[in-house]
Amino acid sequence: MKNGFFNVLSVTAFVDVLRTFSPLTEETVSGMAADGRVLAQDVVSGEDLPAAPRSCMDGYALRAQDVFGASEMNPAYLESVGAVPIEKPAEFSLRPGECASIVTGGILPEGADAVMMIEHTEELGAGTVEMRKSLAPADNVMLKGEDAGAGKVALAAGTLLRPQEIGLLAALGIADVAVHARPRVGILSTGDELVPVAQTPQVGQVRDVNSSTLARSVARAGGLPTQYGLVKDDLASLESALRTALDANDAVFLSGGSSVGTRDLTVAAIERIEGMELVNHGVAISPGKPLILARCGNKAVWGLPGQVASAQVVMFVLGMPFLRHLAGWRNPFDQSLWPARRAVLTRNVASKPGREDYVRVRLDAVDGSVRATPVTGKSGLLKTLILSQGVIRIPSDSEGVYEGAEVDVLLF
Amino acid sequence: MKNGFFNVLSVTAFVDVLRTFSPLTEETVSGMAADGRVLAQDVVSGEDLPAAPRSCMDGYALRAQDVFGASEMNPAYLESVGAVPIEKPAEFSLRPGECASIVTGGILPEGADAVMMIEHTEELGAGTVEMRKSLAPADNVMLKGEDAGAGKVALAAGTLLRPQEIGLLAALGIADVAVHARPRVGILSTGDELVPVAQTPQVGQVRDVNSSTLARSVARAGGLPTQYGLVKDDLASLESALRTALDANDAVFLSGGSSVGTRDLTVAAIERIEGMELVNHGVAISPGKPLILARCGNKAVWGLPGQVASAQVVMFVLGMPFLRHLAGWRNPFDQSLWPARRAVLTRNVASKPGREDYVRVRLDAVDGSVRATPVTGKSGLLKTLILSQGVIRIPSDSEGVYEGAEVDVLLF
Repeated sequence: MKNGFFNVLSVTAFVDVLRTFSPLTEETVSGMAADGRVLAQDVVSGEDLPAAPRSCMDGYALRAQDVFGASEMNPAYLESVGAVPIEKPAEFSLRPGECASIVTGGILPEGADAVMMIEHTEELGAGTVEMRKSLAPADNVMLKGEDAGAGKVALAAGTLLRPQEIGLLAALGIADVAVHARPRVGILSTGDELVPVAQTPQVGQVRDVNSSTLARSVARAGGLPTQYGLVKDDLASLESALRTALDANDAVFLSGGSSVGTRDLTVAAIERIEGMELVNHGVAISPGKPLILARCGNKAVWGLPGQVASAQVVMFVLGMPFLRHLAGWRNPFDQSLWPARRAVLTRNVASKPGREDYVRVRLDAVDGSVRATPVTGKSGLLKTLILSQGVIRIPSDSEGVYEGAEVDVLLF
Repeated sequence: MKNGFFNVLSVTAFVDVLRTFSPLTEETVSGMAADGRVLAQDVVSGEDLPAAPRSCMDGYALRAQDVFGASEMNPAYLESVGAVPIEKPAEFSLRPGECASIVTGGILPEGADAVMMIEHTEELGAGTVEMRKSLAPADNVMLKGEDAGAGKVALAAGTLLRPQEIGLLAALGIADVAVHARPRVGILSTGDELVPVAQTPQVGQVRDVNSSTLARSVARAGGLPTQYGLVKDDLASLESALRTALDANDAVFLSGGSSVGTRDLTVAAIERIEGMELVNHGVAISPGKPLILARCGNKAVWGLPGQVASAQVVMFVLGMPFLRHLAGWRNPFDQSLWPARRAVLTRNVASKPGREDYVRVRLDAVDGSVRATPVTGKSGLLKTLILSQGVIRIPSDSEGVYEGAEVDVLLF
């Protein structure tokens, strides 16, 4: 065993290992199906967007220099020469002293470089329009190429696609894009006390919860979960199940019984697979210390604690970011931009230095102020997770946080 | 027109109207497919979970009173009578002075009421075990029924299902649940300058962006979008398209050109549909003031601004919460628990009192401190949305926020 049996890594060291995995190879998907995916290649625009200067307002297209210095007290007077149609360019151009009515989205006629909002104008009859405001060139105009320039990168490789980026692809008429593949994730549960969800447990048995919670977390992180069900607590079964799941997936999440015996078995099964390297045998995190990671090339095997709350916290803090990393996200491990809520802690929280603590909390909004109350309880129960909206992180050099402190609650 | 032509509502008044819509009727789905859905009925547990007291630790099951007051300096000594198997109850029970080794998840034998962690014990040979810690009854034990009690409500109607709640359904062997239906949403775009995404625009024309961005936002809010494509800017086409979309959906989102003429046309088309009531003709929000809402029973028609950034901000602040409301979420309009990030504003932001401003911002994490920089630009462009990670809200009674202030950025 390369790293020694009691190789417990700090969270930082563990994340450094996770970062050494490569993002998955690319695949081509349609723009509309690409929401939540990460571009594997730059998207280059084939055209200027907008293709020509367009008005941002209902009003008058004009030459800005014709209204320089205009105001309510000192208006300028221009001659209207017509109306710009919405769906095609005007057939006229503007000469000095002229303007043309235009609606939002209309193309500026030749000779115009700005648009006066209708609110600042008055038609005086006989084609004369009073202009009560000074404008600079480009005021109230979407410039040619302002959203994307022909031949230029519109969206860089590494961009996470959201509705607005999907909108830009639509605007540019780009049907397909190259994105990183979604991680395929095999999910296994071990523990001789477990029975499948559809089965009625005998006294002493419990239904397999982790397969369900982990599969949903994988899906929420953008992965494609496959449940391989329950594996008997013996070396041959575990080795065989691991091989099957590894073969078909980019990562395998195995949730074991939390007893020392089961963890030993997981390690033993991992060591029987050629090319597999055990990275660690524990992480300085609470809950979740028994976490094991092994790698086989770019494929990962996670040995998660069997206690359901421990497994879910580890999944939230490390597993889901790892899947996003495989899917090409830029630095998903950096928690500083994770969805969160600043809240006031309602109770002291003590923490043992030397490990990162993730404390489950309930959030309450009271008169616009948000309060976080620690939810304590046993890691084998679902209750603490169900009562919580997120976790607060207590760094490994801290002995805790006082009641009344402001904390960032990382939201589930 | 019931409410008068220039009926501009405050955001609060507008939300009050949205709340009067009823959540959608229920449907039955499998537990595994219910992630992100809201329970329409209480889920009652058919059994106790755990079914019997289980150990949270590897160690020894014992009677707490046998180790009351025990410590490193003053240990207690118990006689081990065997090992509890993991998958079934022990065949023995404990008498006073006895203990039994147990692994995490094991069922406590009759007579035991607590578990001593193995770290606080030492086997002295001949069955004697030294116990170096005092315990209270129930210490390190998951109690019978602690996660769910037989015949009791395990998850109440109105609960949003997350991976942990799905896990509880699995633990209880509940295959199907009654949840509120997902809102079906019809999406229409008007504007004679628009062409379908697959078409190459002539000068003056632009591809339809809003249909794509809105569809993705609807899906992200849990709705089922159907795109009805482009509608000609004439009354008969618009009326007919609205009728078709209303017929098959719970809500219709129509993004119009932002010119006054197009808005008038939307209002006119709405008024030709029997049973349709125009709620307002504008909301005191920026961007997004031209927003129109009409209702026909429990069905809603939203007339969104045509400017893409305005439409997306309105969708984010009001449209997506409305869809979650239809899907049964509890008070999705309350922004105080929305995913956000506390950040320091890098520039002054001015705001006109009398309307709620939503200012798009870019977030940067610099040495653990998060900074929000306003992204200014024209609402007709996608650029400002693409450069932003979220928005800050400036209340209608505020004239702005100063550089250096801490703000909550609502994350896209």
